Amino acid sequence: MKKPNIVILGAGYGGMMTAVKLQKNIGVNDANVTLVNKHSYHYQTTWLHENAAGTLHHDRTRIPIKDVIDTSKIKLIQDTVLEIKPSEKRVLLEDGEVTYDYLVISLGFEAATFGIQGLKEHAFTIGSINSARLIRQHIEYNFAKYNTEPDKKPERLNIVVGGAGFTGIEFVGELANRVPDLCREYDIPRDQVRIICVEAAPTALPGFDPQLVEYAMNSLEARGVEFKLSAMIKEVTENKLVFEKDDQREEIGTNTVVWAAGVRGNSIVEESGFEANRGRIPVREDLRPEGYDDVFIVGDCALVMNEEAERPYPPTAQIAIQEAEHTAGNLERLIKGERHLEPFVADLKGTVASLGDSDAIGVVFDDKKLYGWSATAMKKVIDNRYLLKLGGIGLVLKKGKLNFFHF
Amino acid sequence: MKKPNIVILGAGYGGMMTAVKLQKNIGVNDANVTLVNKHSYHYQTTWLHENAAGTLHHDRTRIPIKDVIDTSKIKLIQDTVLEIKPSEKRVLLEDGEVTYDYLVISLGFEAATFGIQGLKEHAFTIGSINSARLIRQHIEYNFAKYNTEPDKKPERLNIVVGGAGFTGIEFVGELANRVPDLCREYDIPRDQVRIICVEAAPTALPGFDPQLVEYAMNSLEARGVEFKLSAMIKEVTENKLVFEKDDQREEIGTNTVVWAAGVRGNSIVEESGFEANRGRIPVREDLRPEGYDDVFIVGDCALVMNEEAERPYPPTAQIAIQEAEHTAGNLERLIKGERHLEPFVADLKGTVASLGDSDAIGVVFDDKKLYGWSATAMKKVIDNRYLLKLGGIGLVLKKGKLNFFHF
Repeated sequence: MKKPNIVILGAGYGGMMTAVKLQKNIGVNDANVTLVNKHSYHYQTTWLHENAAGTLHHDRTRIPIKDVIDTSKIKLIQDTVLEIKPSEKRVLLEDGEVTYDYLVISLGFEAATFGIQGLKEHAFTIGSINSARLIRQHIEYNFAKYNTEPDKKPERLNIVVGGAGFTGIEFVGELANRVPDLCREYDIPRDQVRIICVEAAPTALPGFDPQLVEYAMNSLEARGVEFKLSAMIKEVTENKLVFEKDDQREEIGTNTVVWAAGVRGNSIVEESGFEANRGRIPVREDLRPEGYDDVFIVGDCALVMNEEAERPYPPTAQIAIQEAEHTAGNLERLIKGERHLEPFVADLKGTVASLGDSDAIGVVFDDKKLYGWSATAMKKVIDNRYLLKLGGIGLVLKKGKLNFFHF
Repeated sequence: MKKPNIVILGAGYGGMMTAVKLQKNIGVNDANVTLVNKHSYHYQTTWLHENAAGTLHHDRTRIPIKDVIDTSKIKLIQDTVLEIKPSEKRVLLEDGEVTYDYLVISLGFEAATFGIQGLKEHAFTIGSINSARLIRQHIEYNFAKYNTEPDKKPERLNIVVGGAGFTGIEFVGELANRVPDLCREYDIPRDQVRIICVEAAPTALPGFDPQLVEYAMNSLEARGVEFKLSAMIKEVTENKLVFEKDDQREEIGTNTVVWAAGVRGNSIVEESGFEANRGRIPVREDLRPEGYDDVFIVGDCALVMNEEAERPYPPTAQIAIQEAEHTAGNLERLIKGERHLEPFVADLKGTVASLGDSDAIGVVFDDKKLYGWSATAMKKVIDNRYLLKLGGIGLVLKKGKLNFFHF
């Protein structure tokens, strides 16, 4: 009997965790497992905002895939996915193709720009090591230019973040900590720099406990962050952002808009013919899309209903990791010839949003609220737990966040 | 009797050394001394190419003026000189004015662009902390962008230096050492980056001993520097440089052109009515321009004839420092009522050009040639000797180049 080919597309949280679980639990005689990824490294998407702000080096955020994956057990292909052809069980890559018996699609997210004029062209998004590094350098470049121009341009020093959701808040928290260092480096008075967070909802962190939201806003405002709430972004150009608030049109001169207000699944999946709902593919309770019994979708590309809350689970790392572990288990069942797959049920452990290196807010377990040091510590525990799962204690020591007592 | 007002314009090598000597040798009852400078800091122009390449932080290169100047003896004015009115003994500043009895003009250099098309708009020059820092960031920004664009643009990774004279050679030496680090930081293969030095003369370092020139070119070429000799730059645009060589027109795609092939005196001096020769003011043997007995010009703005060689002294830090020390002595004579001023005679000690942190070439004393480690060590000795003169051993320990055994 021919060994089945399992192909995993993407080495983000979902793809990596699927591969690591398969590597641990199935033998090389049971299946051929192939992991396809654009880069030679995996990165922790939830740390990228720190790389973008310049508060953490991106080499802390990324991990060479070979440090975790045993290439005598799993075949690595470094290539870019162009299209999936599910009817032919093939995946077209930039430099070749792979065929599969079982496919795991874990291709992550891309920015959802909701058709806002100029956003795609002129705003940055925090989506990869490359894009985070570019944001860091873009900000520095504008700071470096500021003092070389006879007519000082405030737009070089105004950093606008679109969205006060989870990512937007975490990013402005890092920026608030980074800006004083940038001011020293480039001889710029702190009061000439603005960090402005523009949010369409009437509150920051919509959905979070109001008491924690207030704590977060106070912490950030004390460090100079300005909030524009109930403000709809209308247009972004090379040197300004236009928004509407209380039926008034306002403009902010800025060369730096970072869009952190919406993600959708990787458009390759939709373009490959899978039926999508706002870029995410609705899946059955075993994470397979309707009509495709040989395809699993995990992470940000999957639309998984939380039956209890009557809405989809949010696209978080926590869920992606759980989906991956679950899918690895179901793949084991399939290659052993079992027909019954287990349904996925998420185990929501809580959420912690950092507000820079030494402050955070969060809700864990049964609505227990955390803020300040305890939330910061919890955030680091969560991050380290992932590294432990992925690569053991060695990886935690190498890449983990171990400075619990840093203030 | 009214105390005379001595005003020094510019706190570069010439202005600082004049001020330090006066501070040491004349009493507060003898004269009022005022030092006017754009920034609150002095910087070592001869180290700026390292800041621009990113191999040395600019805070090593600059020194707060107040660390060296005793403000109970010398008045500091942080302001920008707009115009000198010698007939009225006044200097107009951006935020005020000063009047003088004796004026020392030490306003440094600016780039001479020889009318090359687009050079002024699109090329960088290494002239100040601000401009050096911008070059560093400009290069990094282009490296950061390279991997984020689907169509890779080689012009982001081509760095062109105009001029293989002293500054050009020292700068490419630093770049050659810096580029491997930049490649690691931005995930770019080293062989995709080009450092190209374009020189109009048929040799690098025209005027230097041919044996040393060969040593320098070998050292730099071994680290990947390309030379285009006998090549006249014709035009610079945002993304290319055009030059002519052997009657052929050639283009290099590049976003980064650094012009290091010519300097002239600060144009404020010429615009204030002093008669200039290519931007430098011819002075008498006591460093006063013809017709102005109350004005001394030191450093790059002064055109001082080397009678022996029958040509002007080059605009170097060494000469500026000697002119400054000499002028401080003549000012002492004037305020003591002496009419006879001493003529300036330069004491040429030699020249050392660094080729990066661990290689150099030079000629010292009576045509003794140096290269490699001994030249590197000599270069550091020269730099430290200046700091010693300026601010004593404390300043040498704080800002000096003490890593003699770094390879």
